[in-house]
Amino acid sequence: MSTPIKPRTPSGVMELLPRDQIAFQRMLDTIRRTFEQFGFLPVETPVMELSDVLLTKSGGDTERQVYFVQSTGALDSAAKEGRPELALRFDLTVPLARYVAEHEHDLAFPFRRYQMQRVYRGERAQSGRYREFYQCDIDVIGKDSLSPRFDAEIPAVIAAVFDHLAIGDFTIHFNHRKLLRGYFEGLGIGDGERQTAVLRELDKLDKRGPDAVRATLAGEGYGLARDVVDALMAFSQVRSTGHADALAKLDAFPQGTALFEEGRAELRAVLAQLQALGVPENRYALNLSIARGLDYYTGIVYETFLDAHAQIGSICSGGRYDNLASHYTKSKLPGVGISIGLTRLFYQLQKAGLVSTAASSVDVLVALMDDAMLPDALALSQRLRAAGLNVETQLEPRKLAKQLQYADRAGIRFVAIRGEDEASRGVVAVKDMRSGDQFELEEADLPAKLQETTR
Amino acid sequence: MSTPIKPRTPSGVMELLPRDQIAFQRMLDTIRRTFEQFGFLPVETPVMELSDVLLTKSGGDTERQVYFVQSTGALDSAAKEGRPELALRFDLTVPLARYVAEHEHDLAFPFRRYQMQRVYRGERAQSGRYREFYQCDIDVIGKDSLSPRFDAEIPAVIAAVFDHLAIGDFTIHFNHRKLLRGYFEGLGIGDGERQTAVLRELDKLDKRGPDAVRATLAGEGYGLARDVVDALMAFSQVRSTGHADALAKLDAFPQGTALFEEGRAELRAVLAQLQALGVPENRYALNLSIARGLDYYTGIVYETFLDAHAQIGSICSGGRYDNLASHYTKSKLPGVGISIGLTRLFYQLQKAGLVSTAASSVDVLVALMDDAMLPDALALSQRLRAAGLNVETQLEPRKLAKQLQYADRAGIRFVAIRGEDEASRGVVAVKDMRSGDQFELEEADLPAKLQETTR
Repeated sequence: MSTPIKPRTPSGVMELLPRDQIAFQRMLDTIRRTFEQFGFLPVETPVMELSDVLLTKSGGDTERQVYFVQSTGALDSAAKEGRPELALRFDLTVPLARYVAEHEHDLAFPFRRYQMQRVYRGERAQSGRYREFYQCDIDVIGKDSLSPRFDAEIPAVIAAVFDHLAIGDFTIHFNHRKLLRGYFEGLGIGDGERQTAVLRELDKLDKRGPDAVRATLAGEGYGLARDVVDALMAFSQVRSTGHADALAKLDAFPQGTALFEEGRAELRAVLAQLQALGVPENRYALNLSIARGLDYYTGIVYETFLDAHAQIGSICSGGRYDNLASHYTKSKLPGVGISIGLTRLFYQLQKAGLVSTAASSVDVLVALMDDAMLPDALALSQRLRAAGLNVETQLEPRKLAKQLQYADRAGIRFVAIRGEDEASRGVVAVKDMRSGDQFELEEADLPAKLQETTR
Repeated sequence: MSTPIKPRTPSGVMELLPRDQIAFQRMLDTIRRTFEQFGFLPVETPVMELSDVLLTKSGGDTERQVYFVQSTGALDSAAKEGRPELALRFDLTVPLARYVAEHEHDLAFPFRRYQMQRVYRGERAQSGRYREFYQCDIDVIGKDSLSPRFDAEIPAVIAAVFDHLAIGDFTIHFNHRKLLRGYFEGLGIGDGERQTAVLRELDKLDKRGPDAVRATLAGEGYGLARDVVDALMAFSQVRSTGHADALAKLDAFPQGTALFEEGRAELRAVLAQLQALGVPENRYALNLSIARGLDYYTGIVYETFLDAHAQIGSICSGGRYDNLASHYTKSKLPGVGISIGLTRLFYQLQKAGLVSTAASSVDVLVALMDDAMLPDALALSQRLRAAGLNVETQLEPRKLAKQLQYADRAGIRFVAIRGEDEASRGVVAVKDMRSGDQFELEEADLPAKLQETTR
């Protein structure tokens, strides 16, 4: 036999041991259940797309990070020249655009979809950067138009997701592109590219500090008047605390351009709807510094932060866009959506000690001390499974101490122990590994009792 | 704006519309729940493995079907020469071997894992052949040794999975490599390669018919005596009907070689355990024609067929192997496992009319006829969600008839209708789209009533 090859994974991927995988899977399940509670429908797309479909815009940062796929035959052949036919998706938005355009006539609009799959980026590997990672996305896509009322439903979904995930207090920050651009217009910054450039400077406030940003905006490159710079700085520092404060902060602005007023009216409506939806007012805040790159988003934009862990950055972001799939169809498909990068979030939560290794998915270990009891152990296991419990059967007899030790290490809560004595009396001895208690139950009572405790 | 690019997927992938995706997702969930009920733990591995780790055996059919992965940088560079660093997994067995060898010291043995992910093969695209497809695998891996008792647990899992999937009656056929090879030995066919060759001929029984196979085995290439050929034909035609018959058919063979007797004893034990596990006896059968390629399996082998749809072929196959990960570790890791190729199965079931488009994952559409009722509709939706229902809210008022039509087409069972009149009386009008009934309920009773009906 030859020397073994060292078993290892490529850098930049996350592979978990079973108990961490259970914790991760529970997060995925919670997110999915919440998306479904809000009426979103599942979509899965192939990991491989046709390169010419995926990469409608040639060149650019995106293409530099794309993974291309080739079978051995193609590698050997002339196809080696030129771009390979297949590539791995780098996000779930382009596949959504392709999906909606391709199946346009089979979908009902507004189309609410969720998609939770892995995406691929040829990133330089570094801590917390992944080349393969889960994205959990929801989007609502309209045909020709989409009511701004969907803009308020999205933060209600975000709030429910992170409430259910129970990873600590969080705040959904939002801003509105129309408010932002309308405000810029009002200050005489009407040109779109100029707006983008100014925004980019304002985005550096946290890093560079207000004085440096102020100097740049008033300096030669921009040449903005002092009062304009002051207004920009004040605008981008607006943060609300609570529902009434958000409304008050919106109301405090004087009459603005038509675009500004459109944004203001939409934000007021969003706030009213969030209240009707019962989203607690400490879960959302107006934050006029949120920008999220000017190209794509055209209406409301969202970012979500853990209150006690701002350093993690936004854990769920998105917004409203005018046209999802202009590369694939002449239909106008406006939408609003958000994305959770779950692999990175899980990594950050582990680092911050906010997810612990989960209890096993196994509820009960049915012990075996004696070969003669095997049929009894098998039958007992099946009855517990029929009652909805996850059961592992000890198939070879071992010392009870070893079996208890195994259950303890594996995170299995209960061990069901039945020797001939217990069987003859129709009872089962149960050891609760969490409390250390041991008790006896009538067999008929066992499933209900354990189920009640494990759920 | 440039001409749109035609949105399309590569050939050989399955992409579903939402309602079919819901049906597919329910199958995945059912399989997962059943695997977990039997104490299997989740594992996910990256879709990309290092080529030198994945392809330990150079050349061969496997490598010809492998998809290699390269980022743009690598495509442009010298790395173009030679085999790319990364490749997509083509099954879940090689990644399992790599995983177990890599994490050997962090896993508890016997290690029961399930894995349900997509795998990739550069197949020539044809109907029912997929280049991307789901595999749903379970395996139990022992360290140094693994009790044959696990061989009986596996068919109990298979039986539970297909019972829960409710796609019709099925039978798990099994055979045993030791019985097979022991029987060949007893007939004087002791050489492993000769056994393989003979088996390959016997495998053609269905296609070529008994006369042709008989002629080949008695002919020049094999030169087997007539009574040996008769014995082989009789052996491979053994099929049991029911538990007692399986035991009787095993007992009917005269004393065989040590290997044969080992196989016979293990099969008897498996049968006894299946009975103790309460697996209905029409769910399993001894079938001595099952072979499954001689190289890999060393003990029991399984294939599963839908009784009324034999043409679909085996829907769940596997068996016992001696050493999972010899390429990666010097530890001996025997195991037993099975695999369900779910994408192909779903395609076949759809073709045979055995899966229907599922009802929507949305339980209730909360209707809206009047803008003034929006806050009420939002609040009602949230209360229904809090009670565990999946709820879509109609956010823009439309004629009721249109809303009912939408629910009907989307497969949403209930529409909750509340105008000012109903609200003032504290009731909700509910239309059951399945029965056509409409009824009024106190709002407080609504969640429980709908939940009871939808679950």
